[in-house]
Amino acid sequence: MIYDKKNYNTNDTIIALSTNIIQSSIAVIRLSGNKSINIVNKIFKDCDLNSLNTYSIKYGKIMYNNMILDDVILSLFKNPTSYTGEDIIEISCHASYYITNTIIKMCLEMGARMANPGEFTMRAFLNGKMDLSQAESIADIIASESAKSHYIAINQLKGNISKKIQFLRKKLINLSSIIELNIDFSEENIQINDNYINSQIKDIYKDIEELLNSFSLGNSIKNGIKISIIGKPNVGKSTLINSIINEECSIVSEIPGTTRDCVKADIIIDGMKYIFMDTAGIRQTNDFIEIKGINKTYDIISKSDIILYLFDPSKDTASNIKKEIENLKINNKSKIIILANKLDCYDIKKLKKKYSSIKNIIYISAKKYINIDVLKNVIIKNLQLDHFNYINDNIITNMRHYESLKKANFNLKNINRLIKLDNNEDLIAYEINEAIYHLGSIMGLVYTDDKLDHIFKNFCIGK
Amino acid sequence: MIYDKKNYNTNDTIIALSTNIIQSSIAVIRLSGNKSINIVNKIFKDCDLNSLNTYSIKYGKIMYNNMILDDVILSLFKNPTSYTGEDIIEISCHASYYITNTIIKMCLEMGARMANPGEFTMRAFLNGKMDLSQAESIADIIASESAKSHYIAINQLKGNISKKIQFLRKKLINLSSIIELNIDFSEENIQINDNYINSQIKDIYKDIEELLNSFSLGNSIKNGIKISIIGKPNVGKSTLINSIINEECSIVSEIPGTTRDCVKADIIIDGMKYIFMDTAGIRQTNDFIEIKGINKTYDIISKSDIILYLFDPSKDTASNIKKEIENLKINNKSKIIILANKLDCYDIKKLKKKYSSIKNIIYISAKKYINIDVLKNVIIKNLQLDHFNYINDNIITNMRHYESLKKANFNLKNINRLIKLDNNEDLIAYEINEAIYHLGSIMGLVYTDDKLDHIFKNFCIGK
Repeated sequence: MIYDKKNYNTNDTIIALSTNIIQSSIAVIRLSGNKSINIVNKIFKDCDLNSLNTYSIKYGKIMYNNMILDDVILSLFKNPTSYTGEDIIEISCHASYYITNTIIKMCLEMGARMANPGEFTMRAFLNGKMDLSQAESIADIIASESAKSHYIAINQLKGNISKKIQFLRKKLINLSSIIELNIDFSEENIQINDNYINSQIKDIYKDIEELLNSFSLGNSIKNGIKISIIGKPNVGKSTLINSIINEECSIVSEIPGTTRDCVKADIIIDGMKYIFMDTAGIRQTNDFIEIKGINKTYDIISKSDIILYLFDPSKDTASNIKKEIENLKINNKSKIIILANKLDCYDIKKLKKKYSSIKNIIYISAKKYINIDVLKNVIIKNLQLDHFNYINDNIITNMRHYESLKKANFNLKNINRLIKLDNNEDLIAYEINEAIYHLGSIMGLVYTDDKLDHIFKNFCIGK
Repeated sequence: MIYDKKNYNTNDTIIALSTNIIQSSIAVIRLSGNKSINIVNKIFKDCDLNSLNTYSIKYGKIMYNNMILDDVILSLFKNPTSYTGEDIIEISCHASYYITNTIIKMCLEMGARMANPGEFTMRAFLNGKMDLSQAESIADIIASESAKSHYIAINQLKGNISKKIQFLRKKLINLSSIIELNIDFSEENIQINDNYINSQIKDIYKDIEELLNSFSLGNSIKNGIKISIIGKPNVGKSTLINSIINEECSIVSEIPGTTRDCVKADIIIDGMKYIFMDTAGIRQTNDFIEIKGINKTYDIISKSDIILYLFDPSKDTASNIKKEIENLKINNKSKIIILANKLDCYDIKKLKKKYSSIKNIIYISAKKYINIDVLKNVIIKNLQLDHFNYINDNIITNMRHYESLKKANFNLKNINRLIKLDNNEDLIAYEINEAIYHLGSIMGLVYTDDKLDHIFKNFCIGK
């Protein structure tokens, strides 16, 4: 197994502003490292911080050039009982540009160094306070906008993803030792139990496949479920979005082709974030700008989790609609939901007869709020959201985890093939160790400095 | 004396987010009031907060719907040892929209109420933790961008303005009792010492006048000293700003009339904020937009602390320049500094001869950085900035204080007149008590709810 060396210097003391001072009343400056206490002692004269216990609060003054700079509250968290596992001091001061800048400047002069993005959390990982997958969840927790994306991230912070991966990894380590034993004693003709290994590999493969399958939805929950609304101009696409969010946020107009740019609306429904995109209608046109809009629509279709196809019953025949939907070139037909709008203007029986050749049409009136709830339920069913348990299921939302799991399953596929072919234990052992490596990388059991940099560079400064 | 009743309800518990969650890694939610501990106890299950001492930190979980919402750090400050004088709990959580909203929502359900802007500081005032002038300084401290505006605000927070006002107010109270005594025993013919009262009133008047005089500069220091640069098109106004800030921030071009809109540059020099405004040149033109720009220039001149008049020696005669400066209609001539630019292109001896009829011209080259330092020093001298001691002098920066001081001095002027005229003790007593009232209002010894609302509405939420 490949272990990469740890090059990071954690001997210096880092500092950063952990809050944004704009429109804030207080600001928190955070220091972590073995010089934290000595550094802050030099600018805070009300007591010797060395004399305080961990989890202490001290009120006093920060002095600058023999003048009071600010009244502050210091919170002290001593190694190892802190977030990073190092001595942490949090300075809570007034959220002034001048005060925060001056305090940081003084601490830099006393030997602190500006923290990189996510460096506090990186230190928590390097000091063994959490594994890499848990550390990554911190950024997701901060970015969460909806209840469900939040709980998936909290689940990850609490180590549930790690536990599952660790469980699978241990199984592979166990198999690895059986196979290694077999190799070592191969001349003594100890028989490797092919069936046992085969079934174990299949089980692990299936579990990983399940995690991989959760990624598409997990990613959608994390970033928002993308729903595009398409249809000819003036069929009521903007009105539909408005009726869903119950407020005007995109232009509703009687002139065909009004919505040239995509109008986006982020809506939280039942703790889940949905991104509704009102697109340019698809119709034959010579207007250059409108053609650009239609091309954009095709692009959006390919990236959507759900496509709502909306039509006006007075304007289109069943065969026309079928042809048009065909033209959208949607690969996964289950993604599409066909909506007949303006139900308030027509007789539903006649409509059902007229469009009897098209399956599963939902008849709605965006204007009069008819069957909007039905539509919402169909969306939830189509996404199979009702199949997931957000609290207990392990859902992968992180592209890095997804890539590592994919690589691990590629190794397992190879093993399956090797067993069928010639049962070359050396190759099987190699593939198993590779799979163990990839699973270990999710928790950061193996990593390179480059990878750590890449993971933490998207964090906030001060976390 | 008029005392207004205190209508504010401080029996409920208020809550607010004291930091901005955008681009922050942690957020601080603050509760103040006698129900703070009970409210947070209901959502924080790791210990009974009643059992903790003041100035305690507790790490644990906030639960929502039986699930972990977040790991948080609680800081407890018990009545009366807190900012507001009430029980304060600060919840330090991850800076997530979902987490902060959910915590605040839960606390509201448990009986807290959203705090108004500045309501924590208002409570600190109402509970006697600071006087009104000190409370007002908190907003100034947060807004400070420069060292000098910061130290003026800190000075005010530390009560130095209050001490000065209190000193003058006590003198007046003393005089008031002497006069009241005189009225009470007037039939017994106890002689009032006119000279004593007269000299006392004069002294107080002079002290208040000094404070009033500090306001213009104090206000400039607080909000930035406004310096406008005017002159014909293409004399190098933008280049001058650029050479002062040493970086390009306004358009520099060879086409006359380029700078149509005012370009603003905020610069901190020696701990002081200056706002340089590059204005449209003043010249005869029929261009409508340019005429608007020239009108704006006149407006800016009237609001400036300093006006830099810039000219190109090759283009103008001394009499032309004098006429133009006359046209600017500047009331206070000491505000204007006349600059001959492009010194790098001309011989200084010849220039001095050519413009010998104009006093105090500074010869500079904005392009080649010649005599820019001389200019900076002349600005500081003109503003009499070198006369002020920012740390020890009492400088008024608050319009409300200024208005109250002006009213008090109006009363003192009346007293002076009354003594000269007929020595009517009743009227003198009335005017003295009015002056005492106005001085008291600065510290909030007398106030109305309306006034408090007005003072605190410009504070941040959460302070």
